[in-house]
Amino acid sequence: MSTTDRTATPVTVLGLGAMGRALAGAFLRAGHPTTVWNRTPGRADELVARGAVRADTVAEAVTAAPLVVVCVLDYAVSRAILEPVGARLSGRVLVNLTSDTPERSRDAAAWAAGHDIDYLDGSIMVPTPVIGQPEATVLYSGSAGAFETYEATLKALGGRAPYLGEDPGTAAVYDLSLLGFFYSAMAGLVHSFALSGAEGIPAARFAPFTEAIAGILPPIAAAMAQDLDRGVFSGDQDNIVMEAAGLAHILEATEHRGINTEVLTAVKGLVDRTIAAGHGGTGFASVMVQMREPSTEA
Amino acid sequence: MSTTDRTATPVTVLGLGAMGRALAGAFLRAGHPTTVWNRTPGRADELVARGAVRADTVAEAVTAAPLVVVCVLDYAVSRAILEPVGARLSGRVLVNLTSDTPERSRDAAAWAAGHDIDYLDGSIMVPTPVIGQPEATVLYSGSAGAFETYEATLKALGGRAPYLGEDPGTAAVYDLSLLGFFYSAMAGLVHSFALSGAEGIPAARFAPFTEAIAGILPPIAAAMAQDLDRGVFSGDQDNIVMEAAGLAHILEATEHRGINTEVLTAVKGLVDRTIAAGHGGTGFASVMVQMREPSTEA
Repeated sequence: MSTTDRTATPVTVLGLGAMGRALAGAFLRAGHPTTVWNRTPGRADELVARGAVRADTVAEAVTAAPLVVVCVLDYAVSRAILEPVGARLSGRVLVNLTSDTPERSRDAAAWAAGHDIDYLDGSIMVPTPVIGQPEATVLYSGSAGAFETYEATLKALGGRAPYLGEDPGTAAVYDLSLLGFFYSAMAGLVHSFALSGAEGIPAARFAPFTEAIAGILPPIAAAMAQDLDRGVFSGDQDNIVMEAAGLAHILEATEHRGINTEVLTAVKGLVDRTIAAGHGGTGFASVMVQMREPSTEA
Repeated sequence: MSTTDRTATPVTVLGLGAMGRALAGAFLRAGHPTTVWNRTPGRADELVARGAVRADTVAEAVTAAPLVVVCVLDYAVSRAILEPVGARLSGRVLVNLTSDTPERSRDAAAWAAGHDIDYLDGSIMVPTPVIGQPEATVLYSGSAGAFETYEATLKALGGRAPYLGEDPGTAAVYDLSLLGFFYSAMAGLVHSFALSGAEGIPAARFAPFTEAIAGILPPIAAAMAQDLDRGVFSGDQDNIVMEAAGLAHILEATEHRGINTEVLTAVKGLVDRTIAAGHGGTGFASVMVQMREPSTEA
């Protein structure tokens, strides 16, 4: 095995919520000497039993390793934890895996630069049980040097670790954009279970049919991307007027069963305004024209 | 080849919009003598050049084959076409692939029963270019006898042809439920391109990242289905309070860039009300509790 250097890297994990514990556990499994800290120290018990070192203070934690990973609720919390130990972090690599907006990632990076801290921002794209697996994706942006030095170490958290560029906000941009897609799709899943369930179809019987829909989304996204990058809405693949008719049928059947229509009504609103703006001959991608407008009732 | 019987089945296709032409083309490719009719006869030209027979009237069309397939804009249109030829359809199999609500499928089946027409209702789950391919899905419900007799013939339209039961509305229930999921996800895709695009990320660069999200949806649907069928929201997989925090970050970043938030605001509304109703310790599946309530501003 050529993992001697990699397993030798000591790491510190700040924040031991469900995700922080999963991260520390993955480092331990990969053989990294791992120091952990949490505001409520009891959260570290299981990790300590597995070989982690419990730090009593943040200062002690961040000086225990050249690579410090922080994963807490948001950047207000991470700032409150890190602010007092800025000087001690100087010369080290700080990887912030807290999920928040790109603006806050950039603010955190600016603060880190002011303290000579080599800063990487990361976005975890998988739930805790998948952490540490080869297919787990964690996106990174920020210091290229920090990523290069610790890429192998960070891959203990997830085998898919794309580096997206020097802008420390980029990982968060990808994260929020992908989560926007995810939560819309999740609401769609719940809607589909509600509508089929209202007809007595067991959810377990219906669920496998969602696979075919999920499977066509990436090729549709690829085709949509071509239109968007060229700035031309072709309508080769689909027609938004037909799609509006389909949406009307779904809404009618949904209302008829007393099921909530708020999400799909918002989708239909975007589609209708896109058609009204003269894009009736194009495909769903032209909804982008309306998506780029602020909400009508903000 | 044991397809002699199958290729020998004459079929009629009524309605030659983009989808109707794709259906007739698939029957022709599979070797079926195919009669076609459309209100605007010119739509048949290309099919006639490929061997289809053009019928001048609906009556001529429906008497040309034991299996009649209709695919038009909605059931109002299909009824207007079929009503005058009810007696001539008697004893034949009518497959209605028009997309509409379950109620209208059931009405159409009742009308067919009154004319001794063996009725199958179908829902096409793929866009026109995929019609005729082994992986294309068309859902069927209604007459079991009609499905059994013509299953092999109908598979010329799509190799995946699940029969969902005797209720002629069931295929439409699956169709609308799956499309509800689909359009929510599509709006999510456009949102994700808008948000990443606002940061200068080319759509083609971003698009491949949607694959990982699309890929986790079917296993999530399967886990959700378990909760729903048991009537227990476990929260083993995820936590809705964390998800609400994530949604708040997405909405903040989206608003900050002047991008439309209507769809995600509706999702957040459902999530917030679910938490307010006391489901904060559970996962996203508990949104079902709110989804089963009519819209707040209907």
